[in-house]
Amino acid sequence: MTVQFHDQHLSAEALDQIFREARSYNGWLDKEVSDEQLHSIYELMKMGPTSANMQPARVVWVKSDEAKAKLVACVSEGNKAKVEAAPVTAIIGYDIDFHEELPWLFPHTDAKSWFEGDEEGRKEGAFRNSALQGAYLMIAARALGLDCGPMSGFDAAAVEKAFFADDPRHRVNFICSIGYGDKTSIFGRSPRPDFDKFNEIA
Amino acid sequence: MTVQFHDQHLSAEALDQIFREARSYNGWLDKEVSDEQLHSIYELMKMGPTSANMQPARVVWVKSDEAKAKLVACVSEGNKAKVEAAPVTAIIGYDIDFHEELPWLFPHTDAKSWFEGDEEGRKEGAFRNSALQGAYLMIAARALGLDCGPMSGFDAAAVEKAFFADDPRHRVNFICSIGYGDKTSIFGRSPRPDFDKFNEIA
Repeated sequence: MTVQFHDQHLSAEALDQIFREARSYNGWLDKEVSDEQLHSIYELMKMGPTSANMQPARVVWVKSDEAKAKLVACVSEGNKAKVEAAPVTAIIGYDIDFHEELPWLFPHTDAKSWFEGDEEGRKEGAFRNSALQGAYLMIAARALGLDCGPMSGFDAAAVEKAFFADDPRHRVNFICSIGYGDKTSIFGRSPRPDFDKFNEIA
Repeated sequence: MTVQFHDQHLSAEALDQIFREARSYNGWLDKEVSDEQLHSIYELMKMGPTSANMQPARVVWVKSDEAKAKLVACVSEGNKAKVEAAPVTAIIGYDIDFHEELPWLFPHTDAKSWFEGDEEGRKEGAFRNSALQGAYLMIAARALGLDCGPMSGFDAAAVEKAFFADDPRHRVNFICSIGYGDKTSIFGRSPRPDFDKFNEIA
């Protein structure tokens, strides 16, 4: 039975939590994030739409001291302290051979055949759709009372070598720390554009 | 004053609305979406994080019969009827020269200089971050009681010629219909992976 919510708005507080008051944190309170919380984030994010349900994201949740040290070595100077202090940093990767999974992920038709022999198309589709999934990950984490700190300052080849050595068809899209944000680590919010600046109703 | 929501979960109903019960619709009820609703979606989506607040998304909300006919001519056979029936279809584009706007979008430092002379880096950043913004758009629409129908089956060069002719540095990422979904237009939900299939805690 399909449940619909036509014209129903989330509460003002919920909209504040996932969009209006949420911030990207640079520093973190000394408070753990459990494996159960990471599972709960994924249970929500996997429900978000991807093209032909391709679900190309492959996520490494970096939590142990050993894995953190490996990741810190791959990120830019300005991000090292952030990753070190964060309880968890998610590496949002993607599989450029995601189409091998389509027979069970999209069972109603032979979607695998759409992508065979089109590696460029797969790379584009996997990059786009794993970025969507990274956004779902952040909104899901916020919806569960956690904060995020997304970053794109890292050496992609080094991250892939350190974390995807056994999966040579996996690439990294971006990384995102997760935890309980430290209010003192952020400045005023950057300005946001008015609708008319970057939108047109045609 | 920074507002935080540590360990506070959105209600089960809100999580259903934005993730668990939301579906990608193929057909639409005959019910209009107002310009005010489109503004409300943007007011939320623009709060989502982008790298250095680059906000690369440039959105054309296709609503008039004339604009719809132009877009229908650019989409794949299987998507023509969907776009025709939808009250609105958003073209989520991006500006590969987004860095020109960084002096006011990211005023605390000279972020524009990071991207000058690096067109490949800008293309990658704009594609990644406009995909994030497309995901925020969909979650925001759902959070306001609307449904989405994202699509990547279209001729990108044709869309760019038809809608971005005056902005030769704009590209299209994906398109997404918005309205009140018709329950009879969807089938059972495609399977979702278990955590262990595509995730690792390191």
